[in-house]
Amino acid sequence: MAKTINIGLVGYKFMGKAHSNAYRQVTPMMQPDLQPIMKCLCGRNAEGVAAAARQMGWEQTVTDWHQLVASPDIDLVDICTPSGPSHTEIALEAAQHGKHIFCEKPLAASLSDARAMLSAVEQAGVRHMVNFNYRRCPAVALAKKMIGDGLLGDIYHWRSVYLQDWIIDPDFPLVWRLDKSIAGSGPLGDLAAHSIDLAHFLVGPIAKVVGMEQTFVHERPVASEQGGLQATGGVERAPVTVEDAVAFLARFENGVFGTFEATRFAAGRKNYNRFEVNGSRGSLCWNMETMNELEYYDRSNESSGVGSLAGFRLIQATDGSHPYMGSWWPPAHIIGYEHGFIHGVYDLLNGIGNGTPLAPDFRDGARCQAVLEAVTRSIAQGGWTAVEAV
Amino acid sequence: MAKTINIGLVGYKFMGKAHSNAYRQVTPMMQPDLQPIMKCLCGRNAEGVAAAARQMGWEQTVTDWHQLVASPDIDLVDICTPSGPSHTEIALEAAQHGKHIFCEKPLAASLSDARAMLSAVEQAGVRHMVNFNYRRCPAVALAKKMIGDGLLGDIYHWRSVYLQDWIIDPDFPLVWRLDKSIAGSGPLGDLAAHSIDLAHFLVGPIAKVVGMEQTFVHERPVASEQGGLQATGGVERAPVTVEDAVAFLARFENGVFGTFEATRFAAGRKNYNRFEVNGSRGSLCWNMETMNELEYYDRSNESSGVGSLAGFRLIQATDGSHPYMGSWWPPAHIIGYEHGFIHGVYDLLNGIGNGTPLAPDFRDGARCQAVLEAVTRSIAQGGWTAVEAV
Amino acid sequence: MAKTINIGLVGYKFMGKAHSNAYRQVTPMMQPDLQPIMKCLCGRNAEGVAAAARQMGWEQTVTDWHQLVASPDIDLVDICTPSGPSHTEIALEAAQHGKHIFCEKPLAASLSDARAMLSAVEQAGVRHMVNFNYRRCPAVALAKKMIGDGLLGDIYHWRSVYLQDWIIDPDFPLVWRLDKSIAGSGPLGDLAAHSIDLAHFLVGPIAKVVGMEQTFVHERPVASEQGGLQATGGVERAPVTVEDAVAFLARFENGVFGTFEATRFAAGRKNYNRFEVNGSRGSLCWNMETMNELEYYDRSNESSGVGSLAGFRLIQATDGSHPYMGSWWPPAHIIGYEHGFIHGVYDLLNGIGNGTPLAPDFRDGARCQAVLEAVTRSIAQGGWTAVEAV
Amino acid sequence: MAKTINIGLVGYKFMGKAHSNAYRQVTPMMQPDLQPIMKCLCGRNAEGVAAAARQMGWEQTVTDWHQLVASPDIDLVDICTPSGPSHTEIALEAAQHGKHIFCEKPLAASLSDARAMLSAVEQAGVRHMVNFNYRRCPAVALAKKMIGDGLLGDIYHWRSVYLQDWIIDPDFPLVWRLDKSIAGSGPLGDLAAHSIDLAHFLVGPIAKVVGMEQTFVHERPVASEQGGLQATGGVERAPVTVEDAVAFLARFENGVFGTFEATRFAAGRKNYNRFEVNGSRGSLCWNMETMNELEYYDRSNESSGVGSLAGFRLIQATDGSHPYMGSWWPPAHIIGYEHGFIHGVYDLLNGIGNGTPLAPDFRDGARCQAVLEAVTRSIAQGGWTAVEAV
Repeated sequence: MAKTINIGLVGYKFMGKAHSNAYRQVTPMMQPDLQPIMKCLCGRNAEGVAAAARQMGWEQTVTDWHQLVASPDIDLVDICTPSGPSHTEIALEAAQHGKHIFCEKPLAASLSDARAMLSAVEQAGVRHMVNFNYRRCPAVALAKKMIGDGLLGDIYHWRSVYLQDWIIDPDFPLVWRLDKSIAGSGPLGDLAAHSIDLAHFLVGPIAKVVGMEQTFVHERPVASEQGGLQATGGVERAPVTVEDAVAFLARFENGVFGTFEATRFAAGRKNYNRFEVNGSRGSLCWNMETMNELEYYDRSNESSGVGSLAGFRLIQATDGSHPYMGSWWPPAHIIGYEHGFIHGVYDLLNGIGNGTPLAPDFRDGARCQAVLEAVTRSIAQGGWTAVEAV
Repeated sequence: MAKTINIGLVGYKFMGKAHSNAYRQVTPMMQPDLQPIMKCLCGRNAEGVAAAARQMGWEQTVTDWHQLVASPDIDLVDICTPSGPSHTEIALEAAQHGKHIFCEKPLAASLSDARAMLSAVEQAGVRHMVNFNYRRCPAVALAKKMIGDGLLGDIYHWRSVYLQDWIIDPDFPLVWRLDKSIAGSGPLGDLAAHSIDLAHFLVGPIAKVVGMEQTFVHERPVASEQGGLQATGGVERAPVTVEDAVAFLARFENGVFGTFEATRFAAGRKNYNRFEVNGSRGSLCWNMETMNELEYYDRSNESSGVGSLAGFRLIQATDGSHPYMGSWWPPAHIIGYEHGFIHGVYDLLNGIGNGTPLAPDFRDGARCQAVLEAVTRSIAQGGWTAVEAV
Repeated sequence: MAKTINIGLVGYKFMGKAHSNAYRQVTPMMQPDLQPIMKCLCGRNAEGVAAAARQMGWEQTVTDWHQLVASPDIDLVDICTPSGPSHTEIALEAAQHGKHIFCEKPLAASLSDARAMLSAVEQAGVRHMVNFNYRRCPAVALAKKMIGDGLLGDIYHWRSVYLQDWIIDPDFPLVWRLDKSIAGSGPLGDLAAHSIDLAHFLVGPIAKVVGMEQTFVHERPVASEQGGLQATGGVERAPVTVEDAVAFLARFENGVFGTFEATRFAAGRKNYNRFEVNGSRGSLCWNMETMNELEYYDRSNESSGVGSLAGFRLIQATDGSHPYMGSWWPPAHIIGYEHGFIHGVYDLLNGIGNGTPLAPDFRDGARCQAVLEAVTRSIAQGGWTAVEAV
Repeated sequence: MAKTINIGLVGYKFMGKAHSNAYRQVTPMMQPDLQPIMKCLCGRNAEGVAAAARQMGWEQTVTDWHQLVASPDIDLVDICTPSGPSHTEIALEAAQHGKHIFCEKPLAASLSDARAMLSAVEQAGVRHMVNFNYRRCPAVALAKKMIGDGLLGDIYHWRSVYLQDWIIDPDFPLVWRLDKSIAGSGPLGDLAAHSIDLAHFLVGPIAKVVGMEQTFVHERPVASEQGGLQATGGVERAPVTVEDAVAFLARFENGVFGTFEATRFAAGRKNYNRFEVNGSRGSLCWNMETMNELEYYDRSNESSGVGSLAGFRLIQATDGSHPYMGSWWPPAHIIGYEHGFIHGVYDLLNGIGNGTPLAPDFRDGARCQAVLEAVTRSIAQGGWTAVEAV
């Protein structure tokens, strides 16, 4: 009889749906060592959370997260609230109650909040993980193994962009992601945080940065209900308080030369989360929009009896020999966005079940936060800024 | 309280897993009008089926399909057995018992079997559908709408290939898909059947064909257990009784000019199910390996004040405005292979729940079979052959 | 002092321009062992040919090709007239006069004409070559070397299409390419002939075929002057006497399984001359629209310590190690359509200068013609037809 | 009788070959209003320059550029020497002698040199142009027209990289491009200068920048003869005095948000000169490695009766309706790298012949230099730097 763990999830919109799906799917498809029980869903709107729980398969609901994190029924608290101060409040209290914590990214609204969260979980001795879901795309996990195996040699370059366009219409309403008090930042925390985590994962720690940001549309219609991304129009306008675009140059501790950019104003780019790594032996490229593919250039193909046979190779990371793919379908029967969450939950559950390390944990989350904060400071000060150690 | 329907599924390997996943996912993600109860899973191996049922979430198991199709607990029989004679046997008996039937493709091992199945379900007055899953990829469903809307004008060309390479190693064992008595045929029924159904769906009925086939590897190691695709090696060899590759030219009833090819010997092609349609106003291309994308050429872009702006356009069919995608994620957060099955089950359940038409039904399945049979006859006779009416 | 050879060129439109460019460029860029002198250009319209000669750099002009082929000033006759009977007439007479011959493809309007041409040049002891220019794209020449080196292992599949769309508008006029008496055939001789030659070059001789063809637009406006591709409109309409599309299945002598299609009705495809070859060790793909790239799948990449690293690789055949590229620019500084002609002329001149073999010669041209004729016969007779030996 | 102009070219290696080819090809293929006479080629090595002149078709040679720029036979001096101080010396003296000047990029080794050159040509009243050849790729020229026509709306983002890998091997020798005293800088002047000019051309003036640079390989073998790119090995090593990689963030005067990167250490990127422009109505992307293609996203395609039909469109800028392409071949019969030079010379000759403006002229070249210098200053000072006005 497999062991189980009771999950309490806070939030039931986009991320809540993706996490719920992961808990539902992980056991039948991947058989983790610890099986999740979808115990309790938490949301402020009683009717909304009840409907969501019914639909997504949660046993119970509460409207007050204080109640959830205190409940003896709950072993693990999963935080899917907007990425500002709420992450910190919930995590601190959940840790006090001895709950394991799985938290959406970015970890916090500030580095000091992130540090507080890290202290809290370490003091409480609970397990903790941040959901940087793109680490769990098989192609990215394969990239990690390839780099670890030395296939790229010494790394010279990291080049990343995360481009979207969903607010390019000036009449798109002022949703919570455009409100600094709730979201913490714009594409910096929402999108670049993913690129930073991938860079930390694949290349190493970032040492210093210099950045710039821009808000293209300064006022937007106030949305009657700000929970969704739908443009509902409206007469009243209010200021946008986050940036629309951000870019920064970075030097890694190991000397790697890095560039980052994130925007919500790149027409036609919907979820274009792309990186390229160049090393002395080869290169790798990945883009979330074609997430099953990993491009690989192997310099050793440059020599052959008939001339150079080198070229960027489109590896379909859908083979049983690739990370996570043994649980799914035959080669080239592709998987999608939601699978990154299932794989993350799988690693989370196995890590807790077996007492093995979790990654990225809150320390990794705080390191990402330190970079975000350095970028913000650099923009404010107009020059290079060192990333604080965590 | 939503109405429910009790499902009995025969088969628990590749297709059984994909169908089980669809039944599990359709309610939480898509909320069909009729909700499936995963009542009973059937498989010949008692231990195997029990383990599969536990893992995938079925309430009961049986080892004898006769028992399943006769059970008063079951409303719908889902047939996921190998694509030869077993489809027909099970369907005929299920229809006699008044069960609705959802059957994997190809419908039968012969046109006469398919006709018998069609008669049986029509006489029994039960609902019936064949799982040509690729119709339910959003990009394909969008293609159907675009053609229906006249965006391609008059259609001139249908061009399709379905390429795989999983048996290219001569030591790959003699699994059931290479045994004509079980599988009915090789890539003709396994792969080309999909292309034929897509052609019927998007372009119209095929009128006549001329084909050729080839077996490249004539003997293979006998597998100790033939259920999987794993190359287990082995000393004893036995004859391969299906073709390794097939191709045919086709004329459609409406004059469209068509080509088809399917093979398991195209090195590097894993699930390369591709079609291209050319019409008087534009063209469309799709490939399962990048199933979220639809390529579209619009001739009206050829005229602009600055010169032709026409070109093949990569539509990411992942927007809320695209078929089925409102149930999933934001744009460019792609979905995968399994989603075609979820969408198919969704349409199946809604069709049964609301008494609305199901497609492709057994008549469509028989029409596909008529083409398969015409191809086989053409190969045997060495010339053009008319497709029989169904 | 380099040796020279006096060229006489018949025809000054599209092909005449491409050949003239090749003669002008080959010496400065490639330094052949025999240097061409652009001696005399021949065309029926005195004013037109004079203007063309001035512009393209020919020393003299004549309006009567009989005069050209008889001239003691001319060493090599280059035939760029429309691809019907005129090739044969000119070649027979040029051979009688002892001239070397470089002839545009397809060689003739019929197999018997092609055989006559072959006999004539062999009897006269002159050198002869057909300009199947795509053999001279570096990526194609590299493919040839790779196959010759065994990198693809045993070949299983040849898959080719040659798609264009320039007559898709029903009001496009009845230019000479749509007149069977001048052009010989439609896309069969114009486009599929290229695919056939590439198949012969890369895979081997075609043994038998079965084909189909279609004319989508049966009458077109009569062009006042039929020399160009410009749609000039017009009230009077006359019948189109060539096919608009053709496709055929083929078996090669060595058992390879082949498909071919050519059309002028594939909206958006402008010069989509594409082939794919699948063998036991890997695959190759090429498309003229991206002519500098060769896609290569190497099955040996499927095994690695970190999982399969196999994938289609985009070789940019622009490196100094690739055929012909040492004469041009650094890697990825791409070359274009016209370079295939320059490389062809380079090989022609070196072959004549050094007495080394020329390929494709008139025998190869006749072999291509034998396939074209078999396709036509197959379409007329409705079944498989053997290709005649040459 | 067409008017002619006598050309004197300094330099006969890579750029000298590309310019020579342009002069040879421009008249037969494009018929400029002023026809170039390839009068005199200048190079320091008498034997080398004589051989080059013979091969490429120059009438005379000299070994001393002072003699060339003073010669009454010469109307236009074309400067193809390495991109450091020599450009300035030659240009100043050529202007004094009243010669028109066509100069390779970057214009000079410093902004003050560039300003001196600009003053000199303006005072002398001679015509002047810098060869930023990528402006003359038809796809880029089409992009310019599209932006000018408002098809992109307000521009938000400029994103550019220029990636190569030819010195990634640490044993690649210390060629002149790695010597600051000759080359002026590394990829900044060699590669990023192209991106800057394209940004100025398509988007507008850059106002301020912040940059970083890196040298990955600090010492290299001394080449016995440094003129080529061939790795000749060698025992003695000497310091590399230019950067191996550079990146910078930029703000344009019109508020556009820009990023730039150039490197010679991106394994697999051979001539990957890519930009992306995002505006309120759409986006454009271009990459020199596939120079005939322009990617275009048109936001107006997002609304249709059947859902969004928007997507990046691959325009093959090879149609007669596209800039410069009327002089070449039918659609999708692609052109190559060298054609940008032919088109540039065509515009140069027509501009001189007709007294119409030349672009980019020395003022544009100096503006590019001002950005290069600002980047260098920013790197030295560690912060944002304003670009000086020119």
